[in-house]
Parts: sequence; C-alpha cells; structure tokens
Amino acid sequence: MSDLPKHVAIHEEGPREGFQIEPGPIPTSDKIKLIEALADTGLHHIQACSFVSPRVVPQWADAEQTVAGFKAKPGVDYTALWFNASGLDRALAFKDKLKLSGSISLVATEGFCKKNLNRTLAENYEAMRKQTALHIERGVPVKRIGVMAAFGCNYSGDVPPEQVVERVADGFRLAEEAGATIEVISLADTMGWAIPPRIEKVIGAVRAKWPGHTIGLHLHDTRGMAVANAHAAMKMGVAQFDSTVGGLGGCPFAGQKGAAGNICTEELVLLCQEMGIETGVDLDKLIEVGRMAEEIVGHVLPSELIHAGSLEAFRRKAA
Amino acid sequence: MSDLPKHVAIHEEGPREGFQIEPGPIPTSDKIKLIEALADTGLHHIQACSFVSPRVVPQWADAEQTVAGFKAKPGVDYTALWFNASGLDRALAFKDKLKLSGSISLVATEGFCKKNLNRTLAENYEAMRKQTALHIERGVPVKRIGVMAAFGCNYSGDVPPEQVVERVADGFRLAEEAGATIEVISLADTMGWAIPPRIEKVIGAVRAKWPGHTIGLHLHDTRGMAVANAHAAMKMGVAQFDSTVGGLGGCPFAGQKGAAGNICTEELVLLCQEMGIETGVDLDKLIEVGRMAEEIVGHVLPSELIHAGSLEAFRRKAA
Repeated sequence: MSDLPKHVAIHEEGPREGFQIEPGPIPTSDKIKLIEALADTGLHHIQACSFVSPRVVPQWADAEQTVAGFKAKPGVDYTALWFNASGLDRALAFKDKLKLSGSISLVATEGFCKKNLNRTLAENYEAMRKQTALHIERGVPVKRIGVMAAFGCNYSGDVPPEQVVERVADGFRLAEEAGATIEVISLADTMGWAIPPRIEKVIGAVRAKWPGHTIGLHLHDTRGMAVANAHAAMKMGVAQFDSTVGGLGGCPFAGQKGAAGNICTEELVLLCQEMGIETGVDLDKLIEVGRMAEEIVGHVLPSELIHAGSLEAFRRKAA
Repeated sequence: MSDLPKHVAIHEEGPREGFQIEPGPIPTSDKIKLIEALADTGLHHIQACSFVSPRVVPQWADAEQTVAGFKAKPGVDYTALWFNASGLDRALAFKDKLKLSGSISLVATEGFCKKNLNRTLAENYEAMRKQTALHIERGVPVKRIGVMAAFGCNYSGDVPPEQVVERVADGFRLAEEAGATIEVISLADTMGWAIPPRIEKVIGAVRAKWPGHTIGLHLHDTRGMAVANAHAAMKMGVAQFDSTVGGLGGCPFAGQKGAAGNICTEELVLLCQEMGIETGVDLDKLIEVGRMAEEIVGHVLPSELIHAGSLEAFRRKAA
C-alpha cells in the first residue's frame, strides 16, 4: 500500500531563495557563513546563489564573491541558478566549485507564464529550446525538466493533471531535440495550491507516463499544506525535495513579511526522521542553523521547529 | 482503503485559547466581536471563555461580561472551560446560554501531569473522581474523556499507544463509577509530538478498543506537523477537531510569541473543502475573522492562509 522511500534527498535552497527576497542588504560574509553551516549539518545539496542581473536582483550582486568565499565541503554538491546566457557564463567561471546542470523550466499555466516570465507558453517553449541548446553547446548537461504551477495557479486556477503531463512531454521533446538526457522531473507548487489528494493525482499521472524518472517536488507552504503534501508524496515513493532552512524565502504573493515560502528543511527532516527515513542530516545542528538564519535576516522565520526544538533533544532530557 | 468522513465537526477554541495567552488586556468588546464574527462563518461549536481564577489568568477576569455580552446565534453551541467547583458554578450561572458539559481530563504521562497540574497521575485520577461526581450532582452531563500528551511529552518522551489506551480505560472506569455516559474520546497532542504514523497507531489502538465512540483530536502545530496529522486522522475517519482561528493560542513551551499553538481553523477548513468534506464554514468569511483576530491581538498570527487567501477567491478571479 505504501511505497515509502528509505532515503530522501534534500536540496537546500535557503541561501538562494532566502537572500533574494530580503529587502535589506545581507553581508556577503553572512551568506558564506550560512552556506558553510548548512554543509556541516550533513546536507548534500546546497543551492548557493543566483547569477541574475544585479539590476533586477540587487541582493545577488555579490554572487561571485559568495561562491568564491565559501569553503567547499567534500561530498557536497553546491549548485546555482541562472536564467540566461550571461548568467550561465558567470556560473561557468566556477565550474570547478559548483555542480553545473541545466534545467528545462516550463510552466503549467498560461497565466503564471505571462505573469512570472512575461512570455506566452509558446514563447517560453522557444526560449527553452534556445537555452537548452546553449547549455549543451557550453558543455553543461541538462538533466532536469521543471514545471512551475503544477498544482494550481493564482492566475489560471486549477490545473488538470493532464496539463502537467502535457508540459512534461513538452520538456522531453525539447530534451530529445537537443540531445539532453533527463533524469529528474521536478514539479513545483509555486503558489501553494497543492493538497494531498492533488499531489497524489498529479504525481500518479506523471509517474504513470515516465515510471523510470526521479520525481522531485518543490513545495511552498503558502497555505500551510506543505508538510502534509510532502508526507503524501513520500507515501508514493517520492524521495527528492527542495526546501529552505527556517522556511527562508517568504512568499511574494502573500505580500507580507513572515508569510511562508518554501517548505522548511527542518520540518521535512523531522518528518523523515520520525518515519525512519534517512536524510543524512543532523536535525539539532540544522535547527541551530535555522536560528542563525533568523539572526541573519533579522526577523522571525516561518519554521515552527526552530522555535520549539527537536523531539530528540526532549527525548534526551526525558531519558 | 480510505475511511474519509463526509462531514467534519470543528470545535473553535480561538477565543478561549487565544485570549488566555496574550499578555495585553484585550477589551471585552473585542472578545465579543470575535465570538459573534466566528458564529457568522458557519461554525457550530465555539468555546467562548474560561472560568478560571482571575488571579491565575487575569485575561479571563471578564468571562462573565463576555458571555453576557455576545448575542447567541441559534444553532451554535457555545461552550466554556473550567477546572474546579468554583469555575463550574460560575459557568452554571449561564446554563441557558452556554452548552455545559463536563470532561474527565487525564494525562498520558506522569511528567506532564506533574508539570501542568502539579499532581501525580494517581492524584489526578482522584481529583477527576471528585470532579465527575460534582458535575453529575449539579446536573451537568460528563460526555467526554480527554487525554493530554497522548502522542508524546516534553517531560516523559515518547508515549506508547498502550499507555494512551490505559488512560482512556481509566476514564471509562471513572465514568462508569459516576454513572456518566461518555460519547467522545478526545486525544490531545499537547506538545506537538505527533507525526502521521503516530496518529495512525494511537488512533488505531484506541478505536480498536472503543469502536463505537467518537474520537476527537486536539492538535498543536508546535513542530509544523498539525495539518499532516489532521489529514492522516481524516483518512482514518476521524471527524471532530479542535482548532483556533488564525492559529490563536501560541505555544507556552516554545517560549516565543508568534510560535504556533493549535492547528489553524482556516487551514483545517481549506483541507476539508478541497477534499470535498463538509464543515459548514464559509472559508472566505473565516479568513476575514482570522485577520480580525490578528488586529485584536496586535501581532502576526501563525495562520498562513489568512495571509495568502483562499483558493476559491483566486478561482473566482481566474474564471
């Protein structure tokens, strides 16, 4: 009945997602401190920065300094995000330190595509065709298809599972054309529309079509459903999740500081730990890092766990 | 495979739990305003106040004024909380306006019993024997057995399901002795130790022994697991939940304002609504009341949904 994974891979996106949304300038040294502390918790995948235009995202004007500055821990994959040729070239300057891999980034709905990327779905398809070719040309593998708004959309409403399957199929078409070998299908609940039965339907539909591919989930806690959704997905065997320490990231749609963004890494680790699923992460260390993140950004973060403490810590006291 | 209920009964405890923990004096008129607004959302069970010693809980020194002040809506059960004879007598003065019903309140663990009630389990058993007799004597029915710390304890650690079953059995022994007819077994995750598989085990064990009784859940979101736990319980057919609007209540254990307390009523209603389970509650109205609660207490509440808005509101815009 249950298809629970033995191990869950957590892709920590706190530094990249988190610092991007904070209004105040965060010192480069604090960014480096957080990245190094995250690696010390046992996390194996850390998205360190965004190579975006400093005009659009001034918070990442120091992407180069940040990547140059942190001491890389062996065994940890440090990744980065970029959206165009210039970003890719900036990332390539760090190809020995960062694990560079491209993504075919698609959107389930016309509404969010227009709002977020200012492109129609057709225009985004063409943009991804060019971008995938560019990656291959530069020797950067493209292993991932990402679908934003895969569970619903503030602009287009509900998203039928078939529409997500269609979009993933678009991605495979683009990959094949470019000669890219896809390993991961990443589904994002960009605006917090997912609930457990919707998770089951969409993942079920995608997996039925591509049973051999890893499914990754990028969940937002916009409406408080993220942990329930992660749990439902794990019961279907999903074993790869993006998350952010402390729930860093916030939600640009909520229009309010302190509103939830991504699922908290700590809560995901707690859930796994208590269910006997390995993550490799030391939860008590991670909670300390969550508190450090809170100090760095200077306001309360959405993670409940960094305020309450782990169960293991209480078990030790009770013993 | 799934035993999903058609209808979920929500027992709103926001006024009682919420105002009790706020440091500032909340005007009686604001308490009344919130209680009346909650009834207008379609909620059928509202715990309006606590008849406790004003010395211990000064925030409820105006319990009488509050109950006297609100306009009762037909069809809504307004309840109250009390812990001793004096509280019961104060409640009895409002027996026409409040739905008075007693509870046999037990604790799963020695550690929390000592810490919270300053009694051993044996002493609490004796106290409940007296209190149950007193209720029957006063003509107030005792229909509920409550077990605190039923999923784990900050002071005693993990709680085996058999220990919860034992405590519920204690309650039935006390009820039988007093001639009380129990209808509801209420299990409380007082300190946020539950995770979905633990919910399944404890509820499974209790239901196996008392299959004819309603099981109610009182969930706290101390570690971010409350919605996932509610979902797991609903899948087992659990159809009665306590909750608080906006997540009012906070957590006295977290030692931090803004830390989560009870599961948010809005998130519970959203989950039900999206799963096709009736609650009778108008979610958009409830979200407005959550925002009102935030204004009344003067700080951000843990509910994500009051910051993000309902899906139905976005669906209407998208249509």
